Order: sequence, then C-alpha cells, then structure tokens
Amino acid sequence: MAELQGNLLVAQSGGPTCVINASVAGVVTEAGRHEAIEEIYGGLNGILGILNEELIILGDERAKTIEGLRHTPAAALGTCRYKINFDKKPEQAARDMDRLFEVLAAHNIRYFFYAGGNDSQDTAHKIHLEAVKRGYELRVMGVPKTIDNDLPHTDHCPGYGSVIKYNSATVMEVGLDVGSMATDDGSCCIIEVMGRAAGWIAAGTVLAKQGDPAKAPHIILLPEIALDEDAFLDKVKATVAEHHFCVVVVGEGLKNAAGDEIGADKSRLDAFGHPVLSGAADALASIVQGRLNLKTRTVKLGYAQRAAAHFASQTDADEAFACGAAAVRAAMEGKSGFMPKIVRLSSQPYKWTIEMEDLANIANVEHFIPRDWISEDGMMPNEKFVEYAAPLVHGEVRPPMVNGLPQYVTLERNRVEQKLPARG
Amino acid sequence: MAELQGNLLVAQSGGPTCVINASVAGVVTEAGRHEAIEEIYGGLNGILGILNEELIILGDERAKTIEGLRHTPAAALGTCRYKINFDKKPEQAARDMDRLFEVLAAHNIRYFFYAGGNDSQDTAHKIHLEAVKRGYELRVMGVPKTIDNDLPHTDHCPGYGSVIKYNSATVMEVGLDVGSMATDDGSCCIIEVMGRAAGWIAAGTVLAKQGDPAKAPHIILLPEIALDEDAFLDKVKATVAEHHFCVVVVGEGLKNAAGDEIGADKSRLDAFGHPVLSGAADALASIVQGRLNLKTRTVKLGYAQRAAAHFASQTDADEAFACGAAAVRAAMEGKSGFMPKIVRLSSQPYKWTIEMEDLANIANVEHFIPRDWISEDGMMPNEKFVEYAAPLVHGEVRPPMVNGLPQYVTLERNRVEQKLPARG
Repeated sequence: MAELQGNLLVAQSGGPTCVINASVAGVVTEAGRHEAIEEIYGGLNGILGILNEELIILGDERAKTIEGLRHTPAAALGTCRYKINFDKKPEQAARDMDRLFEVLAAHNIRYFFYAGGNDSQDTAHKIHLEAVKRGYELRVMGVPKTIDNDLPHTDHCPGYGSVIKYNSATVMEVGLDVGSMATDDGSCCIIEVMGRAAGWIAAGTVLAKQGDPAKAPHIILLPEIALDEDAFLDKVKATVAEHHFCVVVVGEGLKNAAGDEIGADKSRLDAFGHPVLSGAADALASIVQGRLNLKTRTVKLGYAQRAAAHFASQTDADEAFACGAAAVRAAMEGKSGFMPKIVRLSSQPYKWTIEMEDLANIANVEHFIPRDWISEDGMMPNEKFVEYAAPLVHGEVRPPMVNGLPQYVTLERNRVEQKLPARG
Repeated sequence: MAELQGNLLVAQSGGPTCVINASVAGVVTEAGRHEAIEEIYGGLNGILGILNEELIILGDERAKTIEGLRHTPAAALGTCRYKINFDKKPEQAARDMDRLFEVLAAHNIRYFFYAGGNDSQDTAHKIHLEAVKRGYELRVMGVPKTIDNDLPHTDHCPGYGSVIKYNSATVMEVGLDVGSMATDDGSCCIIEVMGRAAGWIAAGTVLAKQGDPAKAPHIILLPEIALDEDAFLDKVKATVAEHHFCVVVVGEGLKNAAGDEIGADKSRLDAFGHPVLSGAADALASIVQGRLNLKTRTVKLGYAQRAAAHFASQTDADEAFACGAAAVRAAMEGKSGFMPKIVRLSSQPYKWTIEMEDLANIANVEHFIPRDWISEDGMMPNEKFVEYAAPLVHGEVRPPMVNGLPQYVTLERNRVEQKLPARG
C-alpha cells in the first residue's frame, strides 16, 4: 500500500472522561512517527468546530503538554454533542457533510480520528462512507471512549476503568463513614452514579465490597433490571437488621416495572432527544424513608465521577493511549472505517491486545451486562462480573501536584489559518 | 506534679472525617511512651458505647494497624451523635453522668480523650467539670475534629484541610469537564458541599481557581450570606456570557433573605434538633433553569467529601495526629478540661504549633468566616481567605493500594471484660 501523504485531524466528541485526552496523546505521539503525516491538527469542539473550520496545530504544542494530556481530564480540544443527523434532519445533514468535506479538502486532511461513544462512532462511520462515495481519499478511524462502557465488540471502553475505580473508592469510603455512626434504628445511604441505559458503572462499584458481604455496597440497582420496590425494601431492611446500615448504589437510569425512569424529569431532553436524568437516588430515598422510616442520605457524584483524574486508573489511561496510537497505525496501513477494540487475553494475570472492528458493527449498538453476571435477585453483580471488572482499576495515574492540587495541562491552541468563508 | 497512674480511654464522636483516626493514632502512640498509663482503651461509638461499657483494648492492636489509622477514613472506634443533654433532658443526663463515672471507676480510667466537634467538646467539658465536682481524679481533654472548621480559637480544625483539598480538586475537574463541552446557550453546574451554618467548606473550593477568573468555581454561595437571587442570577448570566459556562459551589445551609434554608426539608430533624438539609443545589438549579433557561446539572458530594481518604491532605493528617499526641502530653503534665488548638505562626512558609485552650471557651461557640475575607458581593472569598486556606491542603496522604483500591485498616476490637450490670 502506497503511503497516503497529507494532514491529520483528531477531535473529541460526547461526554468527556478522565482519559479521552490520553487517546489524543496516543494519536499525536504515534502520528509524529510517520513521515506521510505532514501536519497534526486538532478540531475544536468535535464536529461542530470542524464545521466552523476551528482547527489548531497540535504539532506546535510542547512535548510536555502532550505528555500531560495522559493525566488531564475533560476534553482538551473541547467536545460537543452535535450529530450529523440524516434521520431527523436530512437537509441539514447533507449541508453539514458538504461543508465537512470542504474543510477537509481545504486543509488537505487525509487522516481523521474521532474519539467518542456510540453517537460519535456513528458519525465517524458516516464520514467514512461519505468519503468513499465522494472518492475523497480519507482514512477515518473511531477511537473508543465512554465511561458508560456500552460499546459493543470491545472488551471494555477506555474511560470505564477510571470511573469505576473512583466510584468504588468512594463507595468504600462512604461505607466506612456510614457504618461507623452508631444509630438507634440504623441508616441508609444511596449513591447515584451515571449510566443511562446500561448499568456497567453502577455494577463496577461491587469492587468496593472486596468480597465481604458486610461491606458497602449492599445493594446495586441497575437500569437494565426494573426496580421491584418490595424486594428492594426487604433487602434494605434485612441489611440494616444484620449490619445496622445499608449502602445502595443506583444507576441514574433505573426504571420501575412500567419502564419509567425513577428519577427522570421528562420535561427536559438533551440534544439527542434523550430525557435528562436526575434524582434516582433522591426518589429512592423518599421511598425508603417513607416506607421504612429509615434515616436516608444521598450522594450524587454527577460529573465528578467522569472527571476524577486525581484517582484515575493507570490501566485505563494506558489503554486509552494505546487505542489512539493503534488507530494511527491502522490508518497508516490503509484501513478506514474501523475502531480499535480492546481484546482481553486473560483476566489473571490481566493481558490484553488491540484489534480492529468495522465501524458498521459499532455504531448505535448498545452493549449490556450479561444477565448471568448478576445475582438472581438482580441487585448484585456476581463473581463473573468481578473477574471482568477487577483488572480495569489496577494502577494509579499520579498527576503532578502543585501546592496540594493536581496540575492539569491546557493546550496553547495555535489556530490553523482559515481558508473558507464562514459556515452558512 | 506527681504522675497520675491509671488507664486511658479515647473515643470519637460526631460526624467522621478523613483524619479523626489519625488523632486516635496520635493519642495511642504518645500514650505508649508514658509509664503512668497502664492500659489504653478505646470506647466504641463515642459516649454511647462507653455508657454501655463497650470498651476495647487498643494496646492489643497491631502496631501496623495503629499506623494505618493515619490514612483510614471514618471513625475506626465507631462514633455517635449522642449528647448528655442537661438542658433538654436533665434527668436522663444526670443518670448518664452517674453511669459514666461508674464505668470510669470500674476500669480505673484516669485519662479521657474525646475527639469531636462543638457538641463533643461540650460533652468533654461537662465531664471535666463533673469529675472535679465528684472529686474523681480524671484528666479530660477534647481533641478537635470537624470538617466544618467552626471551632473557635484554633486556627483551623483537623479534618478541614482534607475536605477542601478533595472538594477543590473535584471542582477543578468538574470545571474542566463542563467547560470543555461546546453548547449553544452555555451551561451551569451547581456543586453542593457540606456546611450547615458556616461556609468554610464551600469557601475552601476557591483554591480550585488558582487565581484565574476564568476557572471554576465562578460563584461560591455561603450559608452566612443570605442569597440575593437577582444578584446571583445576574452573576450566572454574566459568567456564561464571558466563559460560556458557570460552576457554582453552594454550602448546603444556604439561606434566603427570610432566613429559611434554600434546601431544607423541615420535616426531618437530627438528634440535636437541627433540620436535616439536602437539596440546596437542586433548589438553585430549579431557579437557574426556570429563570435563565440555562441547562443546569448538579453534583452533591455528601458523605463522600468527608470520607475521601484517597485524597487527604498530609498537612491535615499530620496536624490531626499531633493534636492527639499533644492532648496526651498536656494530660501527663496535669492539665484537664483543655483542647489542643492549632496556632499559625506563618502562612508562607506555613508554620504552626499547638497550644492548649480551656474547653470553657470552646463548647458550643461557632466560628464564622470574617466578612472581610469575602468579596463585597458575598459570592467569592478573597485573597485573605486564600492565604489562610492554601497551606492546609499541602501534601498527599497516600494510602497503600491493593488491586487498585485503597487499603484501609479495621481494628481487631478485643473487648475489655465488662464489670458492671447492663445500663438501665
């Protein structure tokens, strides 16, 4: 395969994670090794900024800044939830595609890397198909990223290990706190974690138990399994009777038997038309206090959990970097329309490698926890899940500390000169 | 002064912190150096367990467990909110005092250390006065502990540095996350932190800004300063206009102009008759969404912030240990009815020492942020506050990590044989 000469563009999309910048570092570092790649550009704010021709010269950034991306949370390039939506807005989508290829051509971009979750992989896939259709020579690669861990085919997603590491430590610590307070009637604490459809994040906090039934969390409620209110309350009661306290972890998307989200405010929709969720923990707390008369407090980790780079998983950060680098290598080999996926070779000791998956198999498919990885009562992941999740939290990213707080990097963002009229 | 021969009892009270166990480690370690102290006992669950004659032999614990207390969150001895309440329940209180001195005498306890906040210092003070009245030779020392930082006379309280270190890192990380998402209309994130009456915890998150107006938090709302809703919304609007996002930190006890707590549920009272607070962030989010039509998410750190030993301040842990040790030394010198206080010698470089304060001056007095440490608009601590708070977060406690999660210690809890009939 003859080498394709030209410029590279990398961008980030969707909700940030602790390690999505590590993937960008992987792309930039690997790209620097290939002479066919002339300039390394970053697109600001995902596809939205690219449409606006907002590009920066990543090759101008200091080496220590690129290295610092390996421990810096959030999206250093900026991100967006903008979707080129052929289903709902076909005319806008067609205009967007025209504009996108104008931008790519104006800057001779021949390599495009898009780090994100389901929606972003879908976008990458559409851009790949469009390039083929237009005969514009472009190598498009998705780079997996999502705390939700709901991408198919990959063993797990970069971003997931860090969120369950932080959440597990938090649940462990809250459990010690709540369990150390003597009360007459016992107490309950409900910790709400992210996870709209899939319960991977909530399930991951089982690691805090370290196999001890007495330890938190005592109950984990997953969005995949409809809440059986009576069974839940019975388990809270039995837990308090035995341990004098009960720590519950709930995924924000928990549903009742009717399929309604426990904590959804249906009046609010996000850019993709999903309901904005909040308050699963508060809704459950009302139920527990109301029906069991048990003192119940809530914790809602929200954005904190996906940004907690002060306690990120080194395994996760390494894998995120490796996915970025592998995407570049695959593109250099001539591939387009693929996403690096993590393939597990063994759990103990943990060994993994990276292979390529066709984006056609990734886009808009959600991956759920196998039912037989969860206890019969549906309220606790079992040893199969633990074997899966345990290695993902190994090792600690240690961001440099200055005056007791983490030192994160920001990009200088030297702009690429714009060549097109403003987007219409 | 002739040495007082006998046994030592240490107990913990009130809400746990990251470093209240470090104070116990300080007591135990220092006590081991004094021959006059025969046995070192721990009281389970504060005064409540002591009344029930639930004592353990701390001298039997492994040395590495005592050392491990320096990085273990929550109350390793258990804690309680039980108060010997002469004001509201004089008969019960009199019975409690009789029982307490029966327990102390039965086990020849001559040294009593009580680690806690305002209410606990009050209890320690009452026990000291009672011992004098009864002619029971006892050296009673309070050991300061509270994340709220509202004890008077001490420069700050052990527990405070760690909570603002963790909260500042969290606000910094959430700020990067929220700020990296491109939106059409901007966005707002409201982070609720603890602090019932005093805003020390909320104010401490100013450290996340690192002096940069563009960085989170953009607004800090303190319980001491009534919410001016219009001024608050104007500042949110101006912040979003300038930076495209706005991160607000709110202390849970924030009040409106009428003096009502924004997020209080007045139907719930705790053991001291205080309203149980929750939902200041959610209440503010409703206001922001309703009046500015601005997408707003919330984070409620709850118990996680006071238990986050994975990111505790080494300065704080060292001071907590030193307060426990200093209390023992003072008692050995014959003092009773005192509390070690931290005295700041200089901020840059940070230097401190420990002196003793009469418990009569501590009990039930709350210490608030000086008004001239807060900006004129009341929504941001100023450079005087920053100079005060900055050194308290220096250094990282690094708990040992096993399989990617912190390893915290638990006490073996060998029980002291009971000598009294059960409490009536």
